[in-house]
Amino acid sequence: MDTIRSVTVQSPGTIANLVCGFDVLGLALHQPFDCLTLKLIDRPEVEIINHDDYGLPTDPVKNVSGVVLLSIMERLHNGVGFQLISEKKIKPGSGIGSSAASAAGAAVAANMLLGNIFNKEELVQFAMNGEKLASGVKHADNIAPCIYGGITLVRSIHPLDIISIPAPSLFVTVVHPQIEVKTADARQILKKEILLKNAIKQWGNVAGLVAGFFKNDLDLISRSLEDVVIEPLRSILIPGFDEVKVQSKTAGALGGGISGSGPSIFMLSASEGIAKEVAQLMSDVYTRLGIDFHTYVTTINQKGIIQTEQ
Amino acid sequence: MDTIRSVTVQSPGTIANLVCGFDVLGLALHQPFDCLTLKLIDRPEVEIINHDDYGLPTDPVKNVSGVVLLSIMERLHNGVGFQLISEKKIKPGSGIGSSAASAAGAAVAANMLLGNIFNKEELVQFAMNGEKLASGVKHADNIAPCIYGGITLVRSIHPLDIISIPAPSLFVTVVHPQIEVKTADARQILKKEILLKNAIKQWGNVAGLVAGFFKNDLDLISRSLEDVVIEPLRSILIPGFDEVKVQSKTAGALGGGISGSGPSIFMLSASEGIAKEVAQLMSDVYTRLGIDFHTYVTTINQKGIIQTEQ
Repeated sequence: MDTIRSVTVQSPGTIANLVCGFDVLGLALHQPFDCLTLKLIDRPEVEIINHDDYGLPTDPVKNVSGVVLLSIMERLHNGVGFQLISEKKIKPGSGIGSSAASAAGAAVAANMLLGNIFNKEELVQFAMNGEKLASGVKHADNIAPCIYGGITLVRSIHPLDIISIPAPSLFVTVVHPQIEVKTADARQILKKEILLKNAIKQWGNVAGLVAGFFKNDLDLISRSLEDVVIEPLRSILIPGFDEVKVQSKTAGALGGGISGSGPSIFMLSASEGIAKEVAQLMSDVYTRLGIDFHTYVTTINQKGIIQTEQ
Repeated sequence: MDTIRSVTVQSPGTIANLVCGFDVLGLALHQPFDCLTLKLIDRPEVEIINHDDYGLPTDPVKNVSGVVLLSIMERLHNGVGFQLISEKKIKPGSGIGSSAASAAGAAVAANMLLGNIFNKEELVQFAMNGEKLASGVKHADNIAPCIYGGITLVRSIHPLDIISIPAPSLFVTVVHPQIEVKTADARQILKKEILLKNAIKQWGNVAGLVAGFFKNDLDLISRSLEDVVIEPLRSILIPGFDEVKVQSKTAGALGGGISGSGPSIFMLSASEGIAKEVAQLMSDVYTRLGIDFHTYVTTINQKGIIQTEQ
């Protein structure tokens, strides 16, 4: 605790609800990422300074990073506190894990300052307090890949069971159409019950997708990237979704779907060329629809959160 | 076609509906297995001789192996036929793939006689005609592991998509309580709709199980061997099920469940010692219940159907 007084980390965007792997499979991106600079201070307080234009709360009990840091202080109970300078680049509400980046970034940075006293699972536990504040639910689908990197399976939350899945070197194209999909709406549109036959199809695809990742079998990954349960309902909330999906696959993308609960859409591709072509046609779709948008062409981030400066 | 006129194969029992992997995951056993001796004959007929006491039909259109051989002859259309001598050791209705062993064994043996002109996927297609006769449904959950060996994922039937999953060196204990579970009852007891939250739990477990097989992570396999959808309903049809399961896990088994649609129950164990202990306690349960039973202590069969004699 004496050696490092300040740390800066990059906390990446993440894609949860990986097509058929709704609620269980997620992956980390290289772009976009938030920058968090955390300092140890000698009073048991959390001070938050936002270096961005999102107008997020600076009251720690209302701030995603803040509640995570408070939960760590509560565990430590040793009189120290934190000053956080947050520079968010992942737009809140985009569906690519903005709150998870804030929550997990704070937890990981704090742990670095504290001499790595917590393991990754404990960090996920702390960070879930941020997700609880952001969405009302303790979930780890974005936090797990953010902290572990690559592709993660959250097999269970109670007890927490996170499994790293080998991530192939794939390119990821993300389009964020600047519309609002309220998490409440995205939840409400789901049905409490689903057809057993669709559930079977889904877990066959999940099994295929996981096997495809382990075998690095891009054809199998592509065949398994099919969601017969969630996407047919939620994609209704995202204008242009079907067009983006059909055109991306025609252009050679392996497949993809809604990122998190939307509105971002992602596509996986084997080559940068295809990933860029996919970005172009996504742009064309939203330009034609008259909806502002942002695209990213990036890769799967095998490391998750990394330190950039001390 | 001229070199080999007769072939004998061992066609193994299989476990379908591998706990959370209902309808998609199955594995092949070393014990029990059927013996099928197939001969090429010079007339387009199928002649069936049963060397066992099960009284199965010898009319080829009513016989599981028969319809498979007829479907192959229909494809070949070259005037040849088959004589089959079948010695079944897998009791029909046991839930460990008796019909699949007949169907797949006939397809594989025929292919050997024909100079291996069909690939495994085509053999599965032929063999599914036997399952159609036996159960009314073309399914490959038992046929796939019977033909491919080890553990298989049937991701999809239309189009057929079978994926081999690495099988750890596990011991398998099977108990076949000699009660009848009618396939119709086993089907009828399932609900057409299931809770989304249970479906998510199930596909989290399926993903964990597949990852566990790839990583050879016995703890993960054990944690993932949980079925929250089918077992709670179907286990009601099998007296002693809960007791067998609880006692097996207490004895150190990794987990297990209903084999196929029952009535057999299987348990996976890391050591032969535990697998034998599990067999003993299964025996104790059914002895106490006054139900005749048969137990097997065996291993996962990595090869599937093998040739024993020419």
